[in-house]
This record gives sequence, structure tokens and C-alpha cells, in this order.
Amino acid sequence: MSAVMKTQNVKLTIAYDGTHYHGYQEQRGTGLQTIQETLEDGLGRILGIPIKTYVAGRTDAGVHARGQVVNFKCEGLSIPVERIPLAVNRILPEDIAVIGAEKVPDGFNAQLSAVSKLYKYYIFNSRQRSPFSRLYSYFEPRSLDLTAMERAGSMLVGSHDFKSFQASGSTVKNTVREIYKCKVDRVGSLVGIAFRGDGFLYNMVRILAGTLLNVGLEKIHYSDIPNILKAKDRRLAGPTVPSRGLFLEKVNYNTEDFS
Amino acid sequence: MSAVMKTQNVKLTIAYDGTHYHGYQEQRGTGLQTIQETLEDGLGRILGIPIKTYVAGRTDAGVHARGQVVNFKCEGLSIPVERIPLAVNRILPEDIAVIGAEKVPDGFNAQLSAVSKLYKYYIFNSRQRSPFSRLYSYFEPRSLDLTAMERAGSMLVGSHDFKSFQASGSTVKNTVREIYKCKVDRVGSLVGIAFRGDGFLYNMVRILAGTLLNVGLEKIHYSDIPNILKAKDRRLAGPTVPSRGLFLEKVNYNTEDFS
Repeated sequence: MSAVMKTQNVKLTIAYDGTHYHGYQEQRGTGLQTIQETLEDGLGRILGIPIKTYVAGRTDAGVHARGQVVNFKCEGLSIPVERIPLAVNRILPEDIAVIGAEKVPDGFNAQLSAVSKLYKYYIFNSRQRSPFSRLYSYFEPRSLDLTAMERAGSMLVGSHDFKSFQASGSTVKNTVREIYKCKVDRVGSLVGIAFRGDGFLYNMVRILAGTLLNVGLEKIHYSDIPNILKAKDRRLAGPTVPSRGLFLEKVNYNTEDFS
Repeated sequence: MSAVMKTQNVKLTIAYDGTHYHGYQEQRGTGLQTIQETLEDGLGRILGIPIKTYVAGRTDAGVHARGQVVNFKCEGLSIPVERIPLAVNRILPEDIAVIGAEKVPDGFNAQLSAVSKLYKYYIFNSRQRSPFSRLYSYFEPRSLDLTAMERAGSMLVGSHDFKSFQASGSTVKNTVREIYKCKVDRVGSLVGIAFRGDGFLYNMVRILAGTLLNVGLEKIHYSDIPNILKAKDRRLAGPTVPSRGLFLEKVNYNTEDFS
């Protein structure tokens, strides 16, 4: 006689410093450290069974997350779901932390159920660089025209073909995405560019940020943004700025969609 | 005929992330990286002559600085003093930055001319740890009684024999020091304990912070501070908390003293 176990679907919110990882997605057998393998190994040790996670956004090497979301399914849980963060954080390296855990309906999938994601790119904008910001922002000592950057950002909002803002060589067919929000702010020396959208092409956020940076530096005029979009030509957009400045801040779900 | 060169005395303000260094002081021949060697090598390359620095506070392995001060003397400068920061920062690793440079009178010595130093110890006080604070604070998930910590801190202010707060095994004879200020503050999850004093014994700030932490955790009562001072016994004070939470924030000089 075996106990009847109900399949559990667990949603975890995780934060990580991506500096020392080759991105989220597992690369087993390569010797390269990834967030997924480190997290799954930790969860497996805590829960006593192999764990396979599904992730909302596969962040690239060096990209950070304050609110990444994953889910995993298992037959019963050996500890209450609310104890998972403290238990697994004791095992995980200090640059990864589980900051939330909850049971979700069976149909929830961290990636497919997401309705939008909020990414933020940080630029440390000061004459002198800071040793304490080096891992979490891109250093730009020249002064930035934030008003021009905001205007350029507002022109990106909406549903557009973002082919010009996709890493060259990508083979994705449908390059139309919707950006719901683009905001530029400054707190002290730290300039943040926030993008909330339904999805992002490969390197899209870093190319958007690089383009807005060039607008701030007056290398690109904000009124050129519609032309860059129309051209569908990667060469017209700005550079792909380094991953160290990029944070996946939050993944949004419409809970009604998966109940 | 040789040019008459006036000896220059240059004061530099530097910031560094101490995570990857074996402290400030040079340990040549050991293979251990130090701030002093890295800084002096960079300055030497920029100025074209060997540079020997004198430092205000020899920080330990892993301790950070936002406002460390050094001075060095040389016969003439190959570049204007105000250009030193940008020039040397191009050469220095990203975890060290020169943030200020000025000529000072001949009698100025970064250590001997200092009238006080401000150190701050940071505790990340939250249920969940943060991957982004791990290098720059000590993690304490239990709740802290900040009022008790402030009361304990106020009892440390003044001129006292701090023998109880010195690393055991130290051989310094005069263990009397004066603390001018001790303040506890909280910004979000980050609790800071600031100590301004005329000088500090070996590990003194970290032992003081560990003692205040234990007061916050109700392991030591604030009213016991005078007894701990009086006992001159290291065992009565709190633990030496890890170096990662400690910052040398500022070194203060009375300019009249060295003109």
C-alpha cells in the first residue's frame, strides 16, 4: 500500500548576484557554474528528491536578479513550503538566495504564466568610479542628458518590431514585442533605466539601454528612435552594454490565468 | 646644470573594496595582494618614479574604505596633481579608486596628522539574506534592539582604557583611547554603527561592533558596558565580527597642525 501523494507545484522567488555564473540555464557537463544547477542541487538536498525548475527569464552570464521566479513540481514536500527559503539558503552559496516560496495551482508555469517582466539597467554616472558599484552597474563618467533619455524611452513604449534591438545572428522569427513602461531615474550617482514588457528578444534590454545611453551622451538624437525601429537593422541601435548593470527586478503574473 | 625641483607632498583620498586584498599594508615577497602594493605600483607607473605611501589607517584583510588617506613625497610631479585620480584609476583594478588628490604642506603625514577617524560597521538585518549586501555587511536575521545598542554606544563615548576591546595577544602598552562619537542608524535592512575616535586598538572596532550586536540581541545588557570596560578582560566583550562589514569612512585632519 502506498500513500496517495498530491503533486505540488511550488513557486520560488530568487535573488542572485550573477557575477560568478554563466547565466541561469544549466550547462551540465561543461564545468561552467550556472544558477539553475546550483539552485536545483540545493533544493534537491533539502527536499530529498531531484528537482527540475522552470524559470521565468533565462538571464545571461553576469546578469543579476532581485525577483527571478522559478517553479518546480514534486510529489509531496518533506518540509512546509514556507520553510524552504531558510532551509535552502543555509546550503546555497551567499550569492544566491531564495526570498519567497508558495504553493501555486497546477497550471502555473514560471515562464508561460508570466504576463510581464521588469528589467532595470544601472549606470554609475560620476566623475570617479566607485569600487562598491563596479559589480552592479556600468560606469559612465560623462554627463548624461536624462531628459533626452526619457523622451527616447517613451518612444519605445508600445508594440513594435524590435528587430533593430536584437543580437545580430538571432534566428527568432517574430520580433514584435510590447513595452509597457520605460522610466529613467537617478538616485545620487546611479541612473536606472527600467523596462517593463511582455517579453524581450536576446540581448534586447542591454541594446535598448545602450541606445538610451548614447541618447544621453548625445550620440543619438531621441527623435531618431522611430527610424531605428523602422529600419530593423541592428547596426543603427546603440551598443550592447555589459551584463553587470542588468537586473531582472520582478516577474508579474495574473493569478486568474492559471487557477 | 640640474633643474631645482621642489619636494612635493601629495595627499590622496582612496576608496577600495577590501574583499580580495590581504589588508592595506604591503607584504612584498609573500605573493599576497595588498592595497598598498597595488596603489604604489599604479602611482609609480603614472608618475614614472617609485612611490612610497604613508597611510592613515592600516586596514585589515577584507576591510573596506570609502575615505582612506595616504600621502607620498616626490621631487616634482610629471602631471598636475588634480589629474592623478583619473590617470591612476585607468591603471588600478576596479576595486580600488583614487577619489581625491591635493598638494599638502611638507609636514603633513597621513597617519600622524590625523586627529580622528570615522569607522562604520554595517549589519544586514533582515529575515532573508541579500546576495547584493553579502560583501559589504554582516548578516544577522534576528531582530535587534536598536535603542539598547544606542545606549550601549553612548557609554563607550569618552576616554577609556579599551583593553577589553583589543584582540587578545596584542602587546600595545597604552590601551587608552578616546571615542568622540558612537551612533547607530538603520536605513531599510542595513544597520550602521559609526565610531569616531582618536585611534583604535587592533580589532577594536570589530569587537566594539560585536559587543553592540550582542546588546541588540539581548545577550549583553547595555548597563554592563562600564563593567566590561573596567574589567580589562577581552573575554567579557562580544565577538570580533567579520571584516566584510567594516568601512573606514573618513579621516579628519586639523589643517593648522601641519602648516
